[in-house]
Amino acid sequence: MSQPITIALDAMGGDHGPAVVLEGADMARRRFPGMHFLLFGDQAQLNVLLERNAELASISTVHHTDVAIESDAKPSVALRQGRNSSMRLAIQAVRDGTAQGVVSAGNTGALMAMSKIVLKTLPGIHRPALATIFPTKRGETVVLDVGANAECTAENLVQFAVMGEVFARTVIGVVKPTVGLLNIGIEINKGNETVRNAAKLLDEGNLPMVFHGFIEGGDITAGTVDVAVTDGFTGNIALKTAEGTALLIAEYLRAAFKQSLMSRLGYLLARPALDEMRARVDPRHYNGAVFLGLNGIAVKSHGGTDALGFSNAIGVAINMAAKGFNDKVIAELNQWHTDHVATEKAVTI
Amino acid sequence: MSQPITIALDAMGGDHGPAVVLEGADMARRRFPGMHFLLFGDQAQLNVLLERNAELASISTVHHTDVAIESDAKPSVALRQGRNSSMRLAIQAVRDGTAQGVVSAGNTGALMAMSKIVLKTLPGIHRPALATIFPTKRGETVVLDVGANAECTAENLVQFAVMGEVFARTVIGVVKPTVGLLNIGIEINKGNETVRNAAKLLDEGNLPMVFHGFIEGGDITAGTVDVAVTDGFTGNIALKTAEGTALLIAEYLRAAFKQSLMSRLGYLLARPALDEMRARVDPRHYNGAVFLGLNGIAVKSHGGTDALGFSNAIGVAINMAAKGFNDKVIAELNQWHTDHVATEKAVTI
Repeated sequence: MSQPITIALDAMGGDHGPAVVLEGADMARRRFPGMHFLLFGDQAQLNVLLERNAELASISTVHHTDVAIESDAKPSVALRQGRNSSMRLAIQAVRDGTAQGVVSAGNTGALMAMSKIVLKTLPGIHRPALATIFPTKRGETVVLDVGANAECTAENLVQFAVMGEVFARTVIGVVKPTVGLLNIGIEINKGNETVRNAAKLLDEGNLPMVFHGFIEGGDITAGTVDVAVTDGFTGNIALKTAEGTALLIAEYLRAAFKQSLMSRLGYLLARPALDEMRARVDPRHYNGAVFLGLNGIAVKSHGGTDALGFSNAIGVAINMAAKGFNDKVIAELNQWHTDHVATEKAVTI
Repeated sequence: MSQPITIALDAMGGDHGPAVVLEGADMARRRFPGMHFLLFGDQAQLNVLLERNAELASISTVHHTDVAIESDAKPSVALRQGRNSSMRLAIQAVRDGTAQGVVSAGNTGALMAMSKIVLKTLPGIHRPALATIFPTKRGETVVLDVGANAECTAENLVQFAVMGEVFARTVIGVVKPTVGLLNIGIEINKGNETVRNAAKLLDEGNLPMVFHGFIEGGDITAGTVDVAVTDGFTGNIALKTAEGTALLIAEYLRAAFKQSLMSRLGYLLARPALDEMRARVDPRHYNGAVFLGLNGIAVKSHGGTDALGFSNAIGVAINMAAKGFNDKVIAELNQWHTDHVATEKAVTI
């Protein structure tokens, strides 16, 4: 990091509360020397934890609030009743410029709704998107939108493509990311009007991105592209179906290894290799989802994650801030809009 | 079977051609005594194969044609140039009543297009759907539409629900199938207008089905419901993402077992159990996809399947025919339309 970065943490969010948040912050502190934390939450609880960790305490400022958003609260209720919540105050720190990013393991819907209201969207972005990272045969693929927008226009998809490409480049470190548009076939006449129009806009766009064209569901884990773009309805269902498939196979595997004495022994022998494999698909490395397109950096950590997972979510926020993610998105969109003054009028979007 | 059933086979379809088709037919013959086959394809090739199998020959009639649909032909081209193809003639046998169902391992798009044109849709069905079966923690779940309709109305989804429920009941043998509607959350206000309207119609419908409500992507493999209903865009991408995830995990597993001498030994010891597990998710048991809603029975087998897989596809066609699948769908839809004379007008669909 060229200059110190401050991250606001919703210390009360997540299934395991402040203990895991602070442990994650401590892990992040070691990876990113010079950083600072603003901790929003119950001062008494936080101070007890910070007393045990002088180094973390020395780079942290506690902002007390005794309001926390329930993990199952409806976004509308959270918005109404959570004005002084740890989540809202942490987001406001980003708006006010006292922090460069916010990380919360709390209620996703509430975080999304509050972030949109408090931070607003980036200039030129109509809808923020929720992005996540899939492990693939070739490495990692960014998938978005995975649930923020149940209905999308072609131009929304183009904006998601731009944001996903910049994310892959600046946060994951892919040099020249390729972008694919999810469809039910790869021929240009496949799918619905929205994806066909989005493909046309991306094809014609003089964007610095490499637009691969349409991809199918199987291309995500095959690693055909670095960024897979889709609407939030399809993306959410695809993501959760994939997670469900992984869980099913894990259950089948467990049952298979338990089946006989021989298979139990086989498991013991293969265990180090299997553990290493499990680490490769460890959801903590692909922790949470990022809201792209907000006028500020907001990262959602999985609610059930541990300290390692939470520290990775902090790492994503730091990378986005340090590498100027939002500025790059704005620049690319401006470029695209300038190039499209003529074509935009001709295409139904 | 109460009475003998005749199935028309596109003997030239699939990656392995007539040899696998006839071997699959022979396996089906043993499971369904008294059945007959109409074989459409190259007489010379078919006769050579039938000469080696007197029993299969005795229940088969060969209809010669030297036209076969290429596996990568566009549906429009197949329609124009395939009037005398083995696929088209096999479908026509169902239309003409000389066969009760058709099975092809050939080009999916061509089979769908030809079946729609030749067989037409069932009375009351606006759009046929492509259904497939997912293995789940509890057994099996029917998922539809997995690719026939990129855009669907609420009423399309209701019809898919009816067809999926009758399929689960008559072909899979579930006594009282539960039906869920895929969405990005389970609350009634989630998702897009189409799914919300479909849920309303299904809730109000006096259908004999058990409508569970909304489900999420992870509920498919969790086995939360017996039938998961969605549009063909989302369903296709979810299906292929799930298949891709399974392939990725299989590759990770292979790599893990090869990693060391110990892990290789572990694999050898656990192998019988692992093979059994593989058999549980064997795609040959969930072979192909079924076109539901056509005025005739058409089953698509995976192009790359072997004889066992092809025989299972024949089994699906026979079950649908023997158990009066189409009649039951018509009856339920009539029931639904009668009940909905009033509500239909009030709801935007």
